[in-house]
Amino acid sequence: MPSQTTPEQQQQASRFDLDACLVRARRAARALAAADRAAGLRSLAATLEADAEAILAANRDEVVREREAGTAAALVDRLTLDEDRLRAMADAVRAIAALPDPVGRVLQGWTLPNGLRVQQRTVPFGVVAMVYESRPNVTVDAAALALAAGSAAVLRGSANALRSNRALVRAMRMGLARAGLPEDAVQLVDDPDRAQVTALLQARGRVDLAIPRGGAGLIQHVVRTAQVPVIETGVGNCHVYVHADADAEMARRIVLNAKVQRPGVCNAAETLLVHAELAPCWLAGTLQALHEHGVRLHGCERTLGLAGTVPVELASEADWATEYLDLELAVRVVDDLDEALEHVVRYGSGHSEAIVTRSRTAARRFQDEVDAAAVFVNASTRFTDGFEFGFGAEIGISTQKLHARGPMGLAQLVTSKYVIDGDGQVRG
Amino acid sequence: MPSQTTPEQQQQASRFDLDACLVRARRAARALAAADRAAGLRSLAATLEADAEAILAANRDEVVREREAGTAAALVDRLTLDEDRLRAMADAVRAIAALPDPVGRVLQGWTLPNGLRVQQRTVPFGVVAMVYESRPNVTVDAAALALAAGSAAVLRGSANALRSNRALVRAMRMGLARAGLPEDAVQLVDDPDRAQVTALLQARGRVDLAIPRGGAGLIQHVVRTAQVPVIETGVGNCHVYVHADADAEMARRIVLNAKVQRPGVCNAAETLLVHAELAPCWLAGTLQALHEHGVRLHGCERTLGLAGTVPVELASEADWATEYLDLELAVRVVDDLDEALEHVVRYGSGHSEAIVTRSRTAARRFQDEVDAAAVFVNASTRFTDGFEFGFGAEIGISTQKLHARGPMGLAQLVTSKYVIDGDGQVRG
Repeated sequence: MPSQTTPEQQQQASRFDLDACLVRARRAARALAAADRAAGLRSLAATLEADAEAILAANRDEVVREREAGTAAALVDRLTLDEDRLRAMADAVRAIAALPDPVGRVLQGWTLPNGLRVQQRTVPFGVVAMVYESRPNVTVDAAALALAAGSAAVLRGSANALRSNRALVRAMRMGLARAGLPEDAVQLVDDPDRAQVTALLQARGRVDLAIPRGGAGLIQHVVRTAQVPVIETGVGNCHVYVHADADAEMARRIVLNAKVQRPGVCNAAETLLVHAELAPCWLAGTLQALHEHGVRLHGCERTLGLAGTVPVELASEADWATEYLDLELAVRVVDDLDEALEHVVRYGSGHSEAIVTRSRTAARRFQDEVDAAAVFVNASTRFTDGFEFGFGAEIGISTQKLHARGPMGLAQLVTSKYVIDGDGQVRG
Repeated sequence: MPSQTTPEQQQQASRFDLDACLVRARRAARALAAADRAAGLRSLAATLEADAEAILAANRDEVVREREAGTAAALVDRLTLDEDRLRAMADAVRAIAALPDPVGRVLQGWTLPNGLRVQQRTVPFGVVAMVYESRPNVTVDAAALALAAGSAAVLRGSANALRSNRALVRAMRMGLARAGLPEDAVQLVDDPDRAQVTALLQARGRVDLAIPRGGAGLIQHVVRTAQVPVIETGVGNCHVYVHADADAEMARRIVLNAKVQRPGVCNAAETLLVHAELAPCWLAGTLQALHEHGVRLHGCERTLGLAGTVPVELASEADWATEYLDLELAVRVVDDLDEALEHVVRYGSGHSEAIVTRSRTAARRFQDEVDAAAVFVNASTRFTDGFEFGFGAEIGISTQKLHARGPMGLAQLVTSKYVIDGDGQVRG
């Protein structure tokens, strides 16, 4: 979200007409229904590659500007496009085009005693708004997923990627037009004014769904501002609980994987809970392994007592509640499964939770009683992912309970309607 | 929503602790999971009947007060309870108790190449907030549906039914306790201060779902205020389109049923669209029949020209957009199916739409192109209803696209989680 705008941006702001954009998006969404969307996506992918020069030039300007402004290297890297990244984006679009069409599936159907035949069919949402941060690949990924699901995409990226996003959207629209699809099915809210985000999120009846993608701050802002339906994605304060009877080697492998394989993502573990019976013979070695992987450790008193020579800081209340998103882990020794469950109830964010155990009873209780999108037995929390789940795509991981929970693929990006066939039935 | 409070109510306001209420509701929701909820509901129903005297006495006071305050007779009637109505409410609870449990169903399951077994199971939402207007039967109906779906219900009715609601909730809690269920699974926001509604609707993480039930004003207020997930119910600007080739008698029967059988509900028709070829021989007779049923008519110019002696007012733009919820109908002659579809796209509220036709092509186009929760061919719009659909219950008719669209029964009052079983899998 921009805190200030350049004169160039201000000039742009006065020109962008959100109402007109949404009217065009609605019209395009209607036309999409009967279109060959897979062909449109393949054309879109080809045009991204064909238009690489213009896209990379726009991106280069932006990257230079950010470097000169002293933006952190990691952020600049996220903004940066090159030929390989652009090709990977186009390939991802082709992969989405090859997925089964989520629209037009019959979810259920039955005949009523009065002879009415009822069918529930999947249909597109219509107009989907995506609000996200600076990675330009989200621009293409989000648009392609919305289009594959039959909806028009209205995209709002961050101001520091505006030129890259403009170039990408221009190419995507050209690609759609070449395949005979309505180019207004992909539009950019080309205006850094934050008021446009608010207007977009409050366009009731004109935006059917808003999906935020980005950090916790962005997601909170969207959820609090929106008056259109939102799917909340993201925050994961995930736990691995190692039960007394766990296979020691498996437990260590899972804990290490859940924490260090990719610590910056929402399905990485943030807290390790260990049963007090296993801890004396297992914890020190595991902490040592985590330490060797560069993990900073915060432990309860009992953890500190069992840590041996491994450096562990005393955990505060805040540590249990923190999503580190980094090589950092909170560790707590618990007396039993109940204490582990209480901890997860209290601090978990409902994303992904795992137990390592040989016990059917413990596994069953954990899976039944933990209220989260994904509850694992003897596997890493890192598997909560649309691709890992076999969906072939992922628009995000929903942490809310409405509509979709957990990884969202194309099948979750549609709604449904009932179609009812009668021969003159009226209500008595 | 109350615009002013009595001193008694203000005293109450200072006592009610919403935070404590929601903590108790969460705890109760966890306990509900393992409880025999059907037995709890049967006990709740029995206690409502056993406690009839206290409930009716509380209601009587309120009815007298409203009468003395000059409240409209229809509104007083909606507030009024008697033995028959109370018995009907208890019977409705028993019917809900007899429905199949929506919790614990396996929606889908598969095994991944790495051996992980994934199952998606239905689970309760947790804490469901109901915000509604003065009919006290909603208090019982909403609580019973939430409980049957495994969730705790936090109820917020209107101030003028506060005493009735208090008495009903007291009886329901007693009924739950008698069956060994947590009484905090049903709680009343016993405080007419409007700030409590706002706090309830913004209790992110503590309220899993809010459902408004009532008029358009209430629903709008809830949707605009809420920061917790909401299911929007209600508004229906429904159309019946009579195609050129319609069976004349069937079309008349459907139009009459859709308008007059119960005009005050959301699935009643508000606009009749007639193909220009059929109109000369069909419209006058239909208008006459509607007129005889007391329907006030608003027509386009062409309708006026075909109305004969039937009184029809010239329709304004507002008529096309109005949900009359009364014996009142807008009528428009259209040149073809396209014009009818355009009209529905422009003015429809996405609730229920019907076409009367003999043509497979016209029926198919209408069902494909109309974006509404329920699209009927040769049947009355009045069938959009959880009971008519065979759900055995109805918490409302969703007009949004997220989560549930159309009639919502118990099956729509649950969420899901993924449970994943592995034998040590980690991500590579």
